[in-house]
Amino acid sequence: MAKIETIRHSLAHILAYAVQELYPGVRFGVGPGIENGFYYDFDFIKIIKSKIKNQISKMEIKNQKLTPDDLFKIEKKMKELIKQNIKFEKKIISKNEAKKLFKNQPYKLELIEELAEGRSPTIYQSGEFIDLCRGPHIKSTLQLYSGQTKEIIDAFKLTKLAGAYWKGDEKNPMLTRIYGLAFETKNELEDYLKIQQEAEKRDHRVLGQKLELFMFDEEVGTGLPLWMPKGVILRKIIENYLYRELTIQGYQWLITPHIGKLDLWKTSGHWELYRENMYTPIKIEEEEYILKPMNCPFHVKIYQSKIRSYKELPLYLAELGTVYRYEKSGVLHGLTRVRGFTQDDAHIVCMPEQLSEELTKLLKSGLKILKTFGFKNYDIYLSTRPEKYAGALKEWKESIDSLKYVLGKLKLKYQIDSGGGVFYGPKIDIKIKDSLGRDWQCATIQVDFNLPERFKMTYINQKGEKQRPLMIHRALLGSIERFIGVLLEHYAGALPLWLATEQIWVIPVSEKHNKYANKINLQLTTCNLRTKIKNENETVSKKIREGEIQKIPYLLVVGDKEIKTKSVAVRSRKGDEGTIRVDKFIERIKKEIEKK
Amino acid sequence: MAKIETIRHSLAHILAYAVQELYPGVRFGVGPGIENGFYYDFDFIKIIKSKIKNQISKMEIKNQKLTPDDLFKIEKKMKELIKQNIKFEKKIISKNEAKKLFKNQPYKLELIEELAEGRSPTIYQSGEFIDLCRGPHIKSTLQLYSGQTKEIIDAFKLTKLAGAYWKGDEKNPMLTRIYGLAFETKNELEDYLKIQQEAEKRDHRVLGQKLELFMFDEEVGTGLPLWMPKGVILRKIIENYLYRELTIQGYQWLITPHIGKLDLWKTSGHWELYRENMYTPIKIEEEEYILKPMNCPFHVKIYQSKIRSYKELPLYLAELGTVYRYEKSGVLHGLTRVRGFTQDDAHIVCMPEQLSEELTKLLKSGLKILKTFGFKNYDIYLSTRPEKYAGALKEWKESIDSLKYVLGKLKLKYQIDSGGGVFYGPKIDIKIKDSLGRDWQCATIQVDFNLPERFKMTYINQKGEKQRPLMIHRALLGSIERFIGVLLEHYAGALPLWLATEQIWVIPVSEKHNKYANKINLQLTTCNLRTKIKNENETVSKKIREGEIQKIPYLLVVGDKEIKTKSVAVRSRKGDEGTIRVDKFIERIKKEIEKK
Repeated sequence: MAKIETIRHSLAHILAYAVQELYPGVRFGVGPGIENGFYYDFDFIKIIKSKIKNQISKMEIKNQKLTPDDLFKIEKKMKELIKQNIKFEKKIISKNEAKKLFKNQPYKLELIEELAEGRSPTIYQSGEFIDLCRGPHIKSTLQLYSGQTKEIIDAFKLTKLAGAYWKGDEKNPMLTRIYGLAFETKNELEDYLKIQQEAEKRDHRVLGQKLELFMFDEEVGTGLPLWMPKGVILRKIIENYLYRELTIQGYQWLITPHIGKLDLWKTSGHWELYRENMYTPIKIEEEEYILKPMNCPFHVKIYQSKIRSYKELPLYLAELGTVYRYEKSGVLHGLTRVRGFTQDDAHIVCMPEQLSEELTKLLKSGLKILKTFGFKNYDIYLSTRPEKYAGALKEWKESIDSLKYVLGKLKLKYQIDSGGGVFYGPKIDIKIKDSLGRDWQCATIQVDFNLPERFKMTYINQKGEKQRPLMIHRALLGSIERFIGVLLEHYAGALPLWLATEQIWVIPVSEKHNKYANKINLQLTTCNLRTKIKNENETVSKKIREGEIQKIPYLLVVGDKEIKTKSVAVRSRKGDEGTIRVDKFIERIKKEIEKK
Repeated sequence: MAKIETIRHSLAHILAYAVQELYPGVRFGVGPGIENGFYYDFDFIKIIKSKIKNQISKMEIKNQKLTPDDLFKIEKKMKELIKQNIKFEKKIISKNEAKKLFKNQPYKLELIEELAEGRSPTIYQSGEFIDLCRGPHIKSTLQLYSGQTKEIIDAFKLTKLAGAYWKGDEKNPMLTRIYGLAFETKNELEDYLKIQQEAEKRDHRVLGQKLELFMFDEEVGTGLPLWMPKGVILRKIIENYLYRELTIQGYQWLITPHIGKLDLWKTSGHWELYRENMYTPIKIEEEEYILKPMNCPFHVKIYQSKIRSYKELPLYLAELGTVYRYEKSGVLHGLTRVRGFTQDDAHIVCMPEQLSEELTKLLKSGLKILKTFGFKNYDIYLSTRPEKYAGALKEWKESIDSLKYVLGKLKLKYQIDSGGGVFYGPKIDIKIKDSLGRDWQCATIQVDFNLPERFKMTYINQKGEKQRPLMIHRALLGSIERFIGVLLEHYAGALPLWLATEQIWVIPVSEKHNKYANKINLQLTTCNLRTKIKNENETVSKKIREGEIQKIPYLLVVGDKEIKTKSVAVRSRKGDEGTIRVDKFIERIKKEIEKK
């Protein structure tokens, strides 16, 4: 059976065939199948107008820029070709034959030149279009594979144009890339498009503005979020939850400065191995300081502020620390990729023999916390020793064994990311899946035997001897900023009750109901509910509409009837829920909040 | 009547006389009376050994460094001189006479040279010691002034040695400064010494270390505090209190980054007028960013994120924002003078006609909050237009009038600090007095018509026209770091119950009382009390001693008797308070916390 990958790759050829028909003389780059579809790179910039009369190689330069409208034209041509049941015919030819065949295709010639000595080029012919390609491909556009027919004509769609450097190198010419989506069935394509649309609606940058949570301002700085009042409420809910939850688990909290002497990061090894993410130093009285890219050295210094005994270990040092890391302005994206963010950071200093137990606790606690926020699906990755590494092989092996042992014991499925560890040790990453099935890198648990060594950290063991501890770096949400971005997209802005910055609006039907509304409002506030009275001079329906836009979990309308029955007319996100007695309502939402 | 200032100055002469007696050939700098005492500067470094035999001006260099022991010797000599009833005799002489008189005193010669043309030098002779000095002085050491005798012999004391550059210029030679205290009576001196001793015991830098609240580390950076777990608890108590209190008052909270584009501070005027306190810029992708020295421009940008109506004003925008300001390393002092600190900052944007009302609210709220922390005494200063100022004279006058009006209405005594305002407007400063009567600059309320103008802030008035609002900058505690330093000194570390990081220790008499102690501990924790069980294998008395050192408000000892009577043996800071039933105890301390 032809896999969807094969179909996608074959559609890339059909795309190129269609472009060749519509834009004769176009030069071809490459066109692979990719996740969810395919693309093909074209060079429209210079089109050789073949020899005119007897003049030798006279060329006319034609700058041709495609518009989204052109995509419809190309897609239409592709469908015409598919209907012709274009076949994919494979041939192996000599390099010389290939060079002749692609003599007007400089990019293909480059690829032929690069073929290993003795390797013969493979080509695929589909109608008038021939591509240098190793395949495999479908049999033909109407009969995809032997003995079985499958409809592809309605299961693909061209989506967008982009610029792409030949071979991804910015020194090379910029080609035009045409992207297409392709699935096995029309339904799958439509589902995918629906999710895409949904994702656009959930864009946290749009929601953040609409709900007045945060803003960016180019005059303030690129990639530096400003938190507005409602955003601060949301941050505080999350941060207070973490503080309470982790304090119960024995974490101790630190606050450290945003700058520190550069030497600290020279000692830690970051200045050598992480410099591209660090900002340039600031000189203060002949000494160099740097915006902290991480909190670790400060936590080490606090650990070292006194002699530590084995009795104190494991020691859990946590900080909601705002760090600054350089990112190219081109890759910045709302809250999910910024230049300053707040890590829910912690360092666990433990004896080597405590490692497994600590890792177990961390994984359990991390998954529990993520679940509380509504993320129940995730992929786990175990990243092993990279090419450049510090420490002894024995330490690496033992740490990786511990990580594997713990994952096994907790019956957690995981994938190995071979060589994906940090230079100082292996790690476990948890990528959460949001409600649209998208992955978000989030929690990370990293074993580190490098920093304790470099900073010469010690503890006194039971025999009174100095020993080197191990350190675990861990962040559960990763970055508070990023996590809030993910939360907004996951819930499309309709955060669960416990996270809603405004939980309830009390809406009096008319002015004469204000007194009762005020009473209800006060009663709710006393119960620590985040509530607001909406007594502006506007219609009830307008206020309800506004409440829905603002994704308020509960709108309570109060009029004559409600006053008489000591009740409220409840409108939740599910719709009208009828009239409920005030005490019953409070009881109900208190339960909802506790449940989380 | 001779003022104490005259006595202090005369004692400086007696000090110089004594030194002359003990260290012949010493060179004299200057010796004024100062606050609480006096000093005299001496050059002991090079002592001229007068001509030996017939050799011309042969000099021997003798490096003489005084030790604190030498101070006793000098003080003793001073008392001998005082008993001889040394007189102070004034003479006016010619410059030439003076030059002859002081021919071996190069510093005095320099001063004579500097005397204005036509001015004749005044000298004072006291026994063998002659000084260039304008006076006035006491009559003699036993009969201070005509017709009245006063004992000074027991009312002064030499206190310390320090290095001081001649004329305060580091290019000049370093002289040895001897400091002395002097008061009108022995009692006054003793009171002052007692307070000094008390202040040393209350040194927040010492307490901070002993109570494990914060630390500094030269490798981390100069003037950058690291907050340790207990310190974070204290910060959170204070910050949560401010958050709750101010939220009720209508404040909205912001969180803004620690760096921003330099242009913002060019617009605000700080780059021009405040640059010496700002760090050097960081270059990011060809743009200059700076560590924020204040939060204002960010708050302005958030204000400007939408069109504001008069209905929204006054708008209270608050932030616990950590700012970084350059201070010379020489002036840094524990938490009270640092390079990075967290302002309890707020900006009130209001219509000009709302100014008085807002100032009234701010003053009331500020004094209330300071009182909650235990500061009931303060001095208020109204600072007026400085030489360099922005804005129109009319704006200055109106703002100062508003400030005066408000202070008058609230019947608050104040002093005028003429010309002490900020360049953008007048201000009110509140200096709190701590338990030793020392002043601490704390709250500041500043009117600003400059920033709204420079950033072109507007609101839409009732007629639909754009108007320029006024801005009030205000901080109540000033800097959280500094305020904690002051709190620690004010309370000598024994913070009131609501601020204590650990409120209660439960101490079981022996192992068999652990279960009951645990039960009590849990019961207290459930009531949101910060409590800890002390069940280490140590004696009860050792634990009590430790609790007293750690300034724990309540130590609860539990043994057989307490189990039987469902009670705890309470030891408060006042001492043993006997056995109290658990529920009664909880009730009592809950009340104590609420009262604050």
